[in-house]
Amino acid sequence: MNTLRIENGLLLTMVPGSAPIPDGVVVAKDGEITYAGAPDGAPDESAEQIIDASGALVLPGLVNAHTHLAMTLFRGYADDMPLRRWLEEKIWPAEMKLTEEDVYWGSLLGVCEMLRAGVTCFNDMYHLPQAATKAAIEGGIRACPSGVLLGFLPNAQELLETAIDFVRELQRQAHPRIHPMIAPHAPYTCPDGLMDKVRAAAHQLDVPIHIHIAETAQEVEDSYNEYGESPVQHLNNLGLFDNHVLAAHCVHVDEQDIQILADKQVGIAHCPGSNMKLASGFAPVPRLAAAGAIVGLGTDGCASNNNLDLREEALLAAIIHKGYTGDPTVLRAETVLAIATRGSAQALGLQDLIGTLEVGKRADIIVVDMTKSHMQPLHNPISQLIYAAHSHDVKATIVEGEMVMRDGQLLRVDEQEVIARACECTKRLLG
Amino acid sequence: MNTLRIENGLLLTMVPGSAPIPDGVVVAKDGEITYAGAPDGAPDESAEQIIDASGALVLPGLVNAHTHLAMTLFRGYADDMPLRRWLEEKIWPAEMKLTEEDVYWGSLLGVCEMLRAGVTCFNDMYHLPQAATKAAIEGGIRACPSGVLLGFLPNAQELLETAIDFVRELQRQAHPRIHPMIAPHAPYTCPDGLMDKVRAAAHQLDVPIHIHIAETAQEVEDSYNEYGESPVQHLNNLGLFDNHVLAAHCVHVDEQDIQILADKQVGIAHCPGSNMKLASGFAPVPRLAAAGAIVGLGTDGCASNNNLDLREEALLAAIIHKGYTGDPTVLRAETVLAIATRGSAQALGLQDLIGTLEVGKRADIIVVDMTKSHMQPLHNPISQLIYAAHSHDVKATIVEGEMVMRDGQLLRVDEQEVIARACECTKRLLG
Repeated sequence: MNTLRIENGLLLTMVPGSAPIPDGVVVAKDGEITYAGAPDGAPDESAEQIIDASGALVLPGLVNAHTHLAMTLFRGYADDMPLRRWLEEKIWPAEMKLTEEDVYWGSLLGVCEMLRAGVTCFNDMYHLPQAATKAAIEGGIRACPSGVLLGFLPNAQELLETAIDFVRELQRQAHPRIHPMIAPHAPYTCPDGLMDKVRAAAHQLDVPIHIHIAETAQEVEDSYNEYGESPVQHLNNLGLFDNHVLAAHCVHVDEQDIQILADKQVGIAHCPGSNMKLASGFAPVPRLAAAGAIVGLGTDGCASNNNLDLREEALLAAIIHKGYTGDPTVLRAETVLAIATRGSAQALGLQDLIGTLEVGKRADIIVVDMTKSHMQPLHNPISQLIYAAHSHDVKATIVEGEMVMRDGQLLRVDEQEVIARACECTKRLLG
Repeated sequence: MNTLRIENGLLLTMVPGSAPIPDGVVVAKDGEITYAGAPDGAPDESAEQIIDASGALVLPGLVNAHTHLAMTLFRGYADDMPLRRWLEEKIWPAEMKLTEEDVYWGSLLGVCEMLRAGVTCFNDMYHLPQAATKAAIEGGIRACPSGVLLGFLPNAQELLETAIDFVRELQRQAHPRIHPMIAPHAPYTCPDGLMDKVRAAAHQLDVPIHIHIAETAQEVEDSYNEYGESPVQHLNNLGLFDNHVLAAHCVHVDEQDIQILADKQVGIAHCPGSNMKLASGFAPVPRLAAAGAIVGLGTDGCASNNNLDLREEALLAAIIHKGYTGDPTVLRAETVLAIATRGSAQALGLQDLIGTLEVGKRADIIVVDMTKSHMQPLHNPISQLIYAAHSHDVKATIVEGEMVMRDGQLLRVDEQEVIARACECTKRLLG
């Protein structure tokens, strides 16, 4: 039996209503948490691996609820451009040439970055998802992989069948860290006929649907012109939300949309960095949260962010909504940390597995150093984490009870080789 | 003679119009840059200290144009609160008890954090500025210290005299890294009579004025009610801008204000993190820049940020203006890096000394590692620095030709002692 014990840290279980536990103890056996609490009640047994978290926070791993991981290959390739030109002139032509090799190395590069930054799970939507899945399995991270369905492609029907086969194969393999989804790109790229088939397939396969919704004002305007209703209303009327859906962005949603998203318990991946960088706008997260919607946090892909640093994304979420609402009390640090952990987990439909440190959940845990000058003095550990920390403060990352990053070193992959191979792929793709 | 040579890095001199120079060389003698350019033309002589910047960027140190440094002591002490309650219930009562000891250790803690984050110069406004000055001198950073003049205090006249004496004493000492200013807090806290005396004193002493202007909508509304004009117009009519002025914030400025700020070449310290966290709003930086105003970048104090990470601040500047203007092309990465280096230097009136790497300027230089997974592949080094880097990537910080931070280690101060002493001060102040 593989046992792990973390002790002496300030434990944030992220269970709603829980207080930080000084000198907290977490014990995991074969990847499952068997104890998380005060030192007094902790089991007295030894463990194969003991982590001394003195001077550090211990909390659930951050969950990246929306990305296109292999787009690490395009990091910094095309910035400060309008979205349409960015897609048509830069990103799509490059993506036409992608091979599995490219997606594998680009994804593995992203896995390296995320594990170093305390991200223990990511939700991916990208071409050739078998390659991202391989990267996730080998790198040691938890993943929700999916391909991307684009209705305007001549082989759209074939892509759907491939996506269904992909899910079936992963369900057969039942890897404990792999949770496949099915991913129609967006309502404006997938016609109703395709969306109906996706809905039926997701229902039959019992997997969530991963989709972009209402990212730009233009998308909403076009939806009204075409259907006389918003993208959220349109998808709701198609019955899509009868499945569990992870909707990225939801920037341009009105009160009726917000009510639908809350009523149907759609998981929302808020991506503030990408939404600002591409000038899409500010998702109304305070109103979504107040309506009872499930809100998680995502980085989006590295071509529009340009990193996978979910702590930085949490900072953005914590301050931009104060900025445009004029209310300094919205989205408190505690709320944002909940969004980045259990919020994202619930948005992905993984709330029974991850998102909090509780007995019976999987042991996805990070240890964050608090001893450096920028983290002191320490009045409020959650405030420190959201407003003052940086990703390098993560000193250990544990997934399924296995330590996969320690002191900036990746323990399963050779980071320098991954970088070199990813750079070769980029060079071939972009010339 | 103390000589330093940095070689093999990708050199960004930040001279307007210059391109990145591969394998660039920078040579400094006794704190002054004697060469900055391509390896071909570099002097063939040896140096006492040689820094191999392979795989790294070499650029001017970041310049923090506005902070209240010793407020590191209050980091995370009072977040997610309205500004007025935050000041009246939390910050001001704590500040009443401040001693020189507190300001010294709080400032030194901030110096540690800034040097680790590649900030080589800071503009401070805080009580007991002799203590911050001592911390800056000992820590090895460049500083523009000033006390803070508040007209409503019974000893306002005495504070002004103290401030004048403070400037005179520092001018007598002529420390090469210390550039004093005189700092009336804001137009709404300093009546016209005091502002007149400040103006006359700054003129006579030949030092810039450091002030907050138009941070909140309320301040502007109050100014119209009291004077029938905006804070910018009011100060302009008082003749304050005939001196060089560093104005922090300038969030709520209209077209006439913007024109005045540009015409008078007022230096503006843009503090996007603080302005969002306190819900003050978005300074119209794209319009200020278009009008020809001098824009620099600041973190503000750690009670409203909560760190001193100017790279993070640059990211905010690069994305928030895209978000609220709806234009993804405003404030490109190149523009923002210019703002954080030579923009801030000019805003502080230090453009002849720092802000670019040029022969004759002081050797304030940082070396930023680009070899980690989140910094690869490398298409555009400036984009990478603004959008993808984090402060820990700074692997060497040089001020006045002296290496003061290397690989996360401070070379002049004992960071652990500083943290311990600052935490003791905080404990005494806040209980």
